[in-house]
Amino acid sequence: MSSSEGGSEPTDTREEIMEATYRALCEHGYANLTMQAIADEFEKTKAVLHYHYDTKNELLAAFLEHLLDRFTSRLDVDSDDPNARLDALVDELLLGLDDESGEDREFHTALLELRAQAPHNAAFREQLAANYDLLLDMLTTIIDDGIEQGVFHDVDAERLSALIMATMLGGRVHQITLDREAIALDVREVLEDEILADLRSEAE
Amino acid sequence: MSSSEGGSEPTDTREEIMEATYRALCEHGYANLTMQAIADEFEKTKAVLHYHYDTKNELLAAFLEHLLDRFTSRLDVDSDDPNARLDALVDELLLGLDDESGEDREFHTALLELRAQAPHNAAFREQLAANYDLLLDMLTTIIDDGIEQGVFHDVDAERLSALIMATMLGGRVHQITLDREAIALDVREVLEDEILADLRSEAE
Repeated sequence: MSSSEGGSEPTDTREEIMEATYRALCEHGYANLTMQAIADEFEKTKAVLHYHYDTKNELLAAFLEHLLDRFTSRLDVDSDDPNARLDALVDELLLGLDDESGEDREFHTALLELRAQAPHNAAFREQLAANYDLLLDMLTTIIDDGIEQGVFHDVDAERLSALIMATMLGGRVHQITLDREAIALDVREVLEDEILADLRSEAE
Repeated sequence: MSSSEGGSEPTDTREEIMEATYRALCEHGYANLTMQAIADEFEKTKAVLHYHYDTKNELLAAFLEHLLDRFTSRLDVDSDDPNARLDALVDELLLGLDDESGEDREFHTALLELRAQAPHNAAFREQLAANYDLLLDMLTTIIDDGIEQGVFHDVDAERLSALIMATMLGGRVHQITLDREAIALDVREVLEDEILADLRSEAE
Protein backbone atom coordinates (compact mmCIF):
# COMPACT_ATOMS: atom_id res chain seq x y z
CA MET A 1 0.00 0.00 0.00
CA SER A 2 2.91 2.33 0.73
CA SER A 3 4.28 4.14 -2.28
CA SER A 4 7.76 2.95 -1.38
CA GLU A 5 6.79 -0.71 -1.16
CA GLY A 6 8.71 -2.65 -3.77
CA GLY A 7 10.32 0.54 -5.08
CA SER A 8 14.05 1.02 -5.51
CA GLU A 9 14.33 3.80 -2.89
CA PRO A 10 15.14 2.84 0.66
CA THR A 11 11.91 2.75 2.63
CA ASP A 12 13.66 4.40 5.57
CA THR A 13 14.36 7.66 3.75
CA ARG A 14 10.78 8.07 2.61
CA GLU A 15 9.60 7.16 6.10
CA GLU A 16 11.96 9.80 7.56
CA ILE A 17 10.61 12.40 5.11
CA MET A 18 7.05 11.56 6.13
CA GLU A 19 7.90 11.89 9.82
CA ALA A 20 9.62 15.23 9.11
CA THR A 21 6.50 16.38 7.20
CA TYR A 22 4.31 15.39 10.13
CA ARG A 23 6.46 17.37 12.58
CA ALA A 24 6.66 20.39 10.25
CA LEU A 25 2.87 20.38 9.77
CA CYS A 26 2.28 20.25 13.53
CA GLU A 27 4.76 23.08 14.08
CA HIS A 28 3.95 25.44 11.19
CA GLY A 29 0.46 24.46 10.01
CA TYR A 30 -0.42 24.05 6.37
CA ALA A 31 -0.42 27.75 5.47
CA ASN A 32 3.18 28.30 6.62
CA LEU A 33 4.59 24.98 5.45
CA THR A 34 7.59 25.26 3.13
CA MET A 35 10.00 22.66 1.76
CA GLN A 36 12.63 24.35 3.94
CA ALA A 37 10.49 23.89 7.06
CA ILE A 38 10.21 20.19 6.24
CA ALA A 39 13.95 19.97 5.49
CA ASP A 40 14.65 21.55 8.90
CA GLU A 41 12.93 18.56 10.53
CA PHE A 42 14.81 16.11 8.31
CA GLU A 43 18.25 14.73 9.14
CA LYS A 44 19.46 14.51 5.56
CA THR A 45 19.89 17.45 3.16
CA LYS A 46 17.17 19.38 1.38
CA ALA A 47 18.58 17.93 -1.87
CA VAL A 48 17.52 14.45 -0.71
CA LEU A 49 14.02 15.84 -0.10
CA HIS A 50 13.90 17.25 -3.65
CA TYR A 51 15.33 14.02 -5.06
CA HIS A 52 12.24 12.19 -3.77
CA TYR A 53 9.60 14.88 -4.30
CA ASP A 54 9.78 17.60 -6.92
CA THR A 55 7.23 19.87 -5.31
CA LYS A 56 5.56 20.48 -1.97
CA ASN A 57 2.25 19.39 -3.50
CA GLU A 58 3.73 16.07 -4.57
CA LEU A 59 5.20 15.54 -1.12
CA LEU A 60 1.90 16.39 0.59
CA ALA A 61 -0.11 14.04 -1.65
CA ALA A 62 2.39 11.30 -0.67
CA PHE A 63 1.93 12.35 2.95
CA LEU A 64 -1.84 11.81 2.69
CA GLU A 65 -1.12 8.30 1.43
CA HIS A 66 1.31 7.78 4.32
CA LEU A 67 -1.42 8.82 6.78
CA LEU A 68 -3.67 6.12 5.40
CA ASP A 69 -0.90 3.55 5.99
CA ARG A 70 -0.45 4.85 9.52
CA PHE A 71 -4.19 4.70 10.25
CA THR A 72 -4.64 1.24 8.81
CA SER A 73 -1.56 -0.23 10.53
CA ARG A 74 -2.82 1.11 13.86
CA LEU A 75 -6.21 -0.44 13.12
CA ASP A 76 -4.75 -3.94 12.80
CA VAL A 77 -6.28 -4.89 16.10
CA ASP A 78 -5.36 -8.37 17.13
CA SER A 79 -8.92 -9.57 17.10
CA ASP A 80 -11.51 -11.34 14.98
CA ASP A 81 -14.22 -9.75 17.08
CA PRO A 82 -16.20 -7.34 14.86
CA ASN A 83 -17.27 -5.36 17.95
CA ALA A 84 -13.65 -4.70 18.95
CA ARG A 85 -12.63 -3.87 15.37
CA LEU A 86 -15.58 -1.47 15.01
CA ASP A 87 -14.64 0.28 18.27
CA ALA A 88 -10.98 0.55 17.26
CA LEU A 89 -11.82 2.12 13.91
CA VAL A 90 -14.38 4.60 15.28
CA ASP A 91 -12.17 5.57 18.23
CA GLU A 92 -9.21 6.16 15.93
CA LEU A 93 -11.04 8.21 13.29
CA LEU A 94 -13.31 10.19 15.58
CA LEU A 95 -11.19 10.57 18.71
CA GLY A 96 -7.67 10.14 17.29
CA LEU A 97 -4.61 9.72 19.43
CA ASP A 98 -6.21 11.82 22.14
CA ASP A 99 -2.76 12.59 23.49
CA GLU A 100 -1.97 15.19 26.09
CA SER A 101 0.70 17.01 24.08
CA GLY A 102 -1.73 18.87 21.83
CA GLU A 103 0.17 17.48 18.84
CA ASP A 104 -2.93 15.59 17.74
CA ARG A 105 -4.96 18.82 17.64
CA GLU A 106 -2.25 20.64 15.68
CA PHE A 107 -1.98 17.77 13.26
CA HIS A 108 -5.75 17.58 12.68
CA THR A 109 -5.88 21.32 12.21
CA ALA A 110 -3.25 21.04 9.45
CA LEU A 111 -5.11 18.07 7.95
CA LEU A 112 -8.32 20.13 7.80
CA GLU A 113 -6.44 22.88 5.94
CA LEU A 114 -5.13 20.25 3.49
CA ARG A 115 -8.69 18.95 3.09
CA ALA A 116 -9.97 22.48 2.39
CA GLN A 117 -7.42 22.74 -0.46
CA ALA A 118 -8.74 19.57 -2.12
CA PRO A 119 -11.37 21.32 -4.28
CA HIS A 120 -8.50 23.26 -5.90
CA ASN A 121 -5.89 20.50 -5.87
CA ALA A 122 -6.45 17.34 -7.90
CA ALA A 123 -3.60 15.37 -6.26
CA PHE A 124 -4.95 16.00 -2.75
CA ARG A 125 -8.50 15.24 -3.91
CA GLU A 126 -7.52 11.94 -5.50
CA GLN A 127 -5.56 10.84 -2.44
CA LEU A 128 -8.36 11.86 -0.05
CA ALA A 129 -10.82 9.93 -2.23
CA ALA A 130 -8.53 6.87 -2.10
CA ASN A 131 -8.29 7.22 1.70
CA TYR A 132 -12.08 7.56 1.94
CA ASP A 133 -12.68 4.51 -0.23
CA LEU A 134 -10.25 2.35 1.73
CA LEU A 135 -11.59 3.37 5.15
CA LEU A 136 -15.19 2.97 3.92
CA ASP A 137 -14.27 -0.50 2.67
CA MET A 138 -12.64 -1.43 6.02
CA LEU A 139 -15.74 -0.31 7.91
CA THR A 140 -18.06 -2.11 5.48
CA THR A 141 -16.00 -5.31 5.86
CA ILE A 142 -16.14 -5.13 9.66
CA ILE A 143 -19.94 -4.72 9.55
CA ASP A 144 -20.39 -7.50 6.98
CA ASP A 145 -18.17 -9.82 9.09
CA GLY A 146 -20.29 -9.04 12.15
CA ILE A 147 -23.50 -9.81 10.25
CA GLU A 148 -22.01 -13.09 9.00
CA GLN A 149 -20.91 -14.05 12.51
CA GLY A 150 -24.38 -13.26 13.81
CA VAL A 151 -23.16 -10.57 16.22
CA PHE A 152 -24.53 -7.63 14.17
CA HIS A 153 -28.04 -6.89 13.02
CA ASP A 154 -28.56 -7.34 9.26
CA VAL A 155 -28.11 -3.98 7.50
CA ASP A 156 -26.83 -2.56 4.23
CA ALA A 157 -23.24 -2.34 5.50
CA GLU A 158 -21.92 0.07 2.86
CA ARG A 159 -24.77 2.57 3.27
CA LEU A 160 -24.47 2.51 7.06
CA SER A 161 -20.69 2.89 6.75
CA ALA A 162 -21.10 6.05 4.62
CA LEU A 163 -23.31 7.52 7.36
CA ILE A 164 -20.79 6.63 10.08
CA MET A 165 -17.91 8.10 8.01
CA ALA A 166 -19.82 11.39 7.62
CA THR A 167 -20.66 11.51 11.33
CA MET A 168 -17.03 10.89 12.35
CA LEU A 169 -15.66 13.57 10.02
CA GLY A 170 -18.28 16.13 11.06
CA GLY A 171 -17.72 15.45 14.77
CA ARG A 172 -13.98 15.87 14.32
CA VAL A 173 -14.31 19.07 12.27
CA HIS A 174 -16.73 20.57 14.82
CA GLN A 175 -14.27 19.73 17.60
CA ILE A 176 -11.35 21.40 15.82
CA THR A 177 -13.10 24.46 14.40
CA LEU A 178 -15.23 25.34 17.43
CA ASP A 179 -12.41 24.59 19.90
CA ARG A 180 -14.70 22.40 21.97
CA GLU A 181 -12.79 19.35 23.05
CA ALA A 182 -15.91 17.55 24.28
CA ILE A 183 -17.77 17.50 20.94
CA ALA A 184 -15.95 14.47 19.47
CA LEU A 185 -16.47 12.50 22.69
CA ASP A 186 -20.15 13.50 22.79
CA VAL A 187 -20.65 12.50 19.14
CA ARG A 188 -18.86 9.17 19.87
CA GLU A 189 -21.35 8.47 22.69
CA VAL A 190 -24.47 9.37 20.72
CA LEU A 191 -23.20 7.47 17.65
CA GLU A 192 -22.93 4.44 19.95
CA ASP A 193 -26.38 4.90 21.48
CA GLU A 194 -28.30 5.81 18.32
CA ILE A 195 -26.57 3.79 15.58
CA LEU A 196 -23.96 1.31 16.79
CA ALA A 197 -26.04 -0.14 19.66
CA ASP A 198 -28.78 -1.01 17.12
CA LEU A 199 -26.20 -2.67 14.91
CA ARG A 200 -24.82 -4.70 17.81
CA SER A 201 -28.31 -5.60 19.05
CA GLU A 202 -28.20 -9.19 17.73
CA ALA A 203 -25.31 -9.87 20.08
CA GLU A 204 -27.31 -9.11 23.19
CA MET B 1 -30.08 38.83 14.90
CA SER B 2 -28.38 40.82 12.15
CA SER B 3 -25.53 43.01 13.34
CA SER B 4 -27.12 46.00 11.62
CA GLU B 5 -30.49 45.58 13.30
CA GLY B 6 -31.22 48.65 15.35
CA GLY B 7 -27.85 50.17 14.47
CA SER B 8 -27.42 53.62 13.02
CA GLU B 9 -26.01 52.40 9.68
CA PRO B 10 -28.43 51.79 6.86
CA THR B 11 -29.21 48.08 6.71
CA ASP B 12 -29.05 48.22 2.93
CA THR B 13 -25.36 49.12 2.77
CA ARG B 14 -24.33 46.29 5.07
CA GLU B 15 -26.59 43.94 3.11
CA GLU B 16 -24.95 45.09 -0.14
CA ILE B 17 -21.49 44.49 1.34
CA MET B 18 -22.51 40.99 2.40
CA GLU B 19 -23.84 40.21 -1.07
CA ALA B 20 -20.61 41.55 -2.60
CA THR B 21 -18.59 39.37 -0.21
CA TYR B 22 -20.64 36.32 -1.22
CA ARG B 23 -20.01 36.98 -4.92
CA ALA B 24 -16.29 37.68 -4.38
CA LEU B 25 -15.91 34.45 -2.34
CA CYS B 26 -17.62 32.41 -5.07
CA GLU B 27 -15.43 34.00 -7.73
CA HIS B 28 -12.02 34.12 -6.01
CA GLY B 29 -12.22 31.59 -3.18
CA TYR B 30 -11.00 32.35 0.31
CA ALA B 31 -7.28 32.16 -0.47
CA ASN B 32 -7.44 34.85 -3.16
CA LEU B 33 -9.98 37.09 -1.49
CA THR B 34 -8.90 40.70 -1.01
CA MET B 35 -10.77 43.80 0.13
CA GLN B 36 -10.30 45.06 -3.45
CA ALA B 37 -11.94 41.92 -4.86
CA ILE B 38 -14.92 42.54 -2.57
CA ALA B 39 -14.97 46.25 -3.48
CA ASP B 40 -15.06 45.28 -7.17
CA GLU B 41 -18.37 43.48 -6.53
CA PHE B 42 -19.73 46.43 -4.56
CA GLU B 43 -21.50 49.38 -6.13
CA LYS B 44 -20.22 51.99 -3.69
CA THR B 45 -16.56 52.91 -3.14
CA LYS B 46 -13.91 50.90 -1.31
CA ALA B 47 -13.90 53.70 1.29
CA VAL B 48 -17.48 52.78 2.22
CA LEU B 49 -16.31 49.17 2.68
CA HIS B 50 -13.53 50.31 5.01
CA TYR B 51 -15.89 52.65 6.86
CA HIS B 52 -17.93 49.60 7.89
CA TYR B 53 -15.16 47.04 8.36
CA ASP B 54 -11.56 47.88 9.27
CA THR B 55 -10.11 44.58 8.14
CA LYS B 56 -10.90 41.65 5.91
CA ASN B 57 -11.06 39.44 9.01
CA GLU B 58 -13.67 41.68 10.60
CA LEU B 59 -15.71 41.69 7.40
CA LEU B 60 -15.51 37.89 7.10
CA ALA B 61 -16.58 37.34 10.71
CA ALA B 62 -19.60 39.59 9.98
CA PHE B 63 -20.18 37.56 6.82
CA LEU B 64 -20.38 34.34 8.87
CA GLU B 65 -23.04 36.01 11.00
CA HIS B 66 -24.86 37.10 7.85
CA LEU B 67 -24.86 33.48 6.60
CA LEU B 68 -26.60 32.42 9.76
CA ASP B 69 -29.29 35.06 9.15
CA ARG B 70 -29.65 33.83 5.60
CA PHE B 71 -29.93 30.19 6.68
CA THR B 72 -32.43 30.89 9.42
CA SER B 73 -34.63 33.19 7.30
CA ARG B 74 -34.77 30.48 4.62
CA LEU B 75 -35.73 27.98 7.29
CA ASP B 76 -38.79 30.00 8.32
CA VAL B 77 -41.01 27.42 6.70
CA ASP B 78 -44.65 28.34 6.86
CA SER B 79 -45.54 25.30 8.92
CA ASP B 80 -46.10 24.10 12.46
CA ASP B 81 -45.43 20.56 11.30
CA PRO B 82 -42.22 19.31 12.98
CA ASN B 83 -41.71 16.81 10.14
CA ALA B 84 -41.72 19.56 7.51
CA ARG B 85 -39.47 21.81 9.64
CA LEU B 86 -37.02 18.94 10.21
CA ASP B 87 -36.89 18.20 6.48
CA ALA B 88 -36.37 21.87 5.61
CA LEU B 89 -33.47 22.23 8.04
CA VAL B 90 -31.71 19.01 7.02
CA ASP B 91 -32.20 19.67 3.31
CA GLU B 92 -30.82 23.18 3.66
CA LEU B 93 -27.75 22.29 5.74
CA LEU B 94 -26.84 19.02 4.06
CA LEU B 95 -27.95 19.61 0.47
CA GLY B 96 -27.90 23.42 0.28
CA LEU B 97 -29.31 25.39 -2.58
CA ASP B 98 -28.49 22.54 -4.93
CA ASP B 99 -28.57 24.98 -7.81
CA GLU B 100 -27.39 24.24 -11.31
CA SER B 101 -25.00 27.19 -11.59
CA GLY B 102 -22.26 25.62 -9.48
CA GLU B 103 -22.31 28.76 -7.33
CA ASP B 104 -23.38 26.70 -4.34
CA ARG B 105 -20.32 24.43 -4.70
CA GLU B 106 -17.97 27.42 -5.02
CA PHE B 107 -19.52 29.05 -2.02
CA HIS B 108 -19.27 25.93 0.15
CA THR B 109 -15.67 25.44 -0.94
CA ALA B 110 -14.88 28.97 0.27
CA LEU B 111 -16.83 28.34 3.49
CA LEU B 112 -14.76 25.21 4.15
CA GLU B 113 -11.57 27.26 3.74
CA LEU B 114 -12.94 29.82 6.21
CA ARG B 115 -13.78 26.96 8.58
CA ALA B 116 -10.25 25.57 8.27
CA GLN B 117 -8.91 28.99 9.38
CA ALA B 118 -10.99 28.93 12.55
CA PRO B 119 -8.36 27.17 14.72
CA HIS B 120 -6.04 30.15 14.01
CA ASN B 121 -8.67 32.88 13.97
CA ALA B 122 -10.62 33.68 17.14
CA ALA B 123 -13.23 35.88 15.39
CA PHE B 124 -14.11 33.13 12.88
CA ARG B 125 -14.13 30.51 15.65
CA GLU B 126 -16.47 32.54 17.85
CA GLN B 127 -18.87 33.21 15.00
CA LEU B 128 -18.85 29.58 13.86
CA ALA B 129 -19.54 28.53 17.46
CA ALA B 130 -22.48 30.99 17.62
CA ASN B 131 -23.79 29.61 14.30
CA TYR B 132 -23.41 26.04 15.60
CA ASP B 133 -25.22 26.84 18.85
CA LEU B 134 -28.10 28.56 17.09
CA LEU B 135 -28.60 25.81 14.51
CA LEU B 136 -28.27 23.13 17.20
CA ASP B 137 -30.90 24.98 19.21
CA MET B 138 -33.23 25.23 16.19
CA LEU B 139 -32.91 21.50 15.54
CA THR B 140 -33.40 20.65 19.23
CA THR B 141 -36.53 22.83 19.35
CA ILE B 142 -38.00 21.15 16.26
CA ILE B 143 -37.41 17.70 17.81
CA ASP B 144 -38.81 18.75 21.20
CA ASP B 145 -41.89 20.23 19.48
CA GLY B 146 -42.39 16.96 17.61
CA ILE B 147 -42.14 14.95 20.83
CA GLU B 148 -44.61 17.29 22.52
CA GLN B 149 -47.06 17.01 19.60
CA GLY B 150 -46.75 13.24 19.73
CA VAL B 151 -45.43 12.95 16.16
CA PHE B 152 -41.83 12.11 17.20
CA HIS B 153 -40.52 9.31 19.36
CA ASP B 154 -39.29 10.42 22.79
CA VAL B 155 -35.51 11.03 22.65
CA ASP B 156 -32.87 13.31 24.17
CA ALA B 157 -33.37 16.00 21.53
CA GLU B 158 -30.13 17.90 22.13
CA ARG B 159 -27.91 14.80 21.99
CA LEU B 160 -29.62 13.54 18.82
CA SER B 161 -29.30 17.03 17.31
CA ALA B 162 -25.52 17.05 17.91
CA LEU B 163 -25.27 13.73 16.05
CA ILE B 164 -27.35 15.03 13.13
CA MET B 165 -25.27 18.25 12.98
CA ALA B 166 -22.04 16.20 12.77
CA THR B 167 -23.49 13.92 10.09
CA MET B 168 -24.66 16.86 7.97
CA LEU B 169 -21.30 18.65 8.17
CA GLY B 170 -19.32 15.50 7.41
CA GLY B 171 -21.54 14.58 4.46
CA ARG B 172 -21.15 18.07 3.04
CA VAL B 173 -17.37 18.15 3.53
CA HIS B 174 -17.00 14.72 1.91
CA GLN B 175 -19.07 15.92 -1.05
CA ILE B 176 -16.93 19.03 -1.55
CA THR B 177 -13.48 17.58 -0.88
CA LEU B 178 -13.87 14.30 -2.77
CA ASP B 179 -15.74 15.95 -5.68
CA ARG B 180 -18.50 13.37 -5.45
CA GLU B 181 -21.81 15.10 -5.92
CA ALA B 182 -23.82 12.05 -4.83
CA ILE B 183 -22.34 11.75 -1.31
CA ALA B 184 -24.51 14.43 0.32
CA LEU B 185 -27.65 12.94 -1.27
CA ASP B 186 -26.63 9.44 -0.16
CA VAL B 187 -25.96 10.61 3.39
CA ARG B 188 -29.34 12.41 3.38
CA GLU B 189 -31.08 9.13 2.47
CA VAL B 190 -29.28 6.99 5.03
CA LEU B 191 -29.73 9.67 7.73
CA GLU B 192 -33.46 9.42 6.99
CA ASP B 193 -33.55 5.62 7.05
CA GLU B 194 -31.29 5.04 10.06
CA ILE B 195 -32.01 8.01 12.33
CA LEU B 196 -34.89 10.25 11.25
CA ALA B 197 -37.33 7.41 10.41
CA ASP B 198 -36.93 6.10 13.99
CA LEU B 199 -37.58 9.58 15.33
CA ARG B 200 -40.72 9.94 13.22
CA SER B 201 -41.92 6.44 14.10
CA GLU B 202 -44.62 7.61 16.54
CA ALA B 203 -46.33 9.38 13.67
CA GLU B 204 -46.95 6.20 11.71
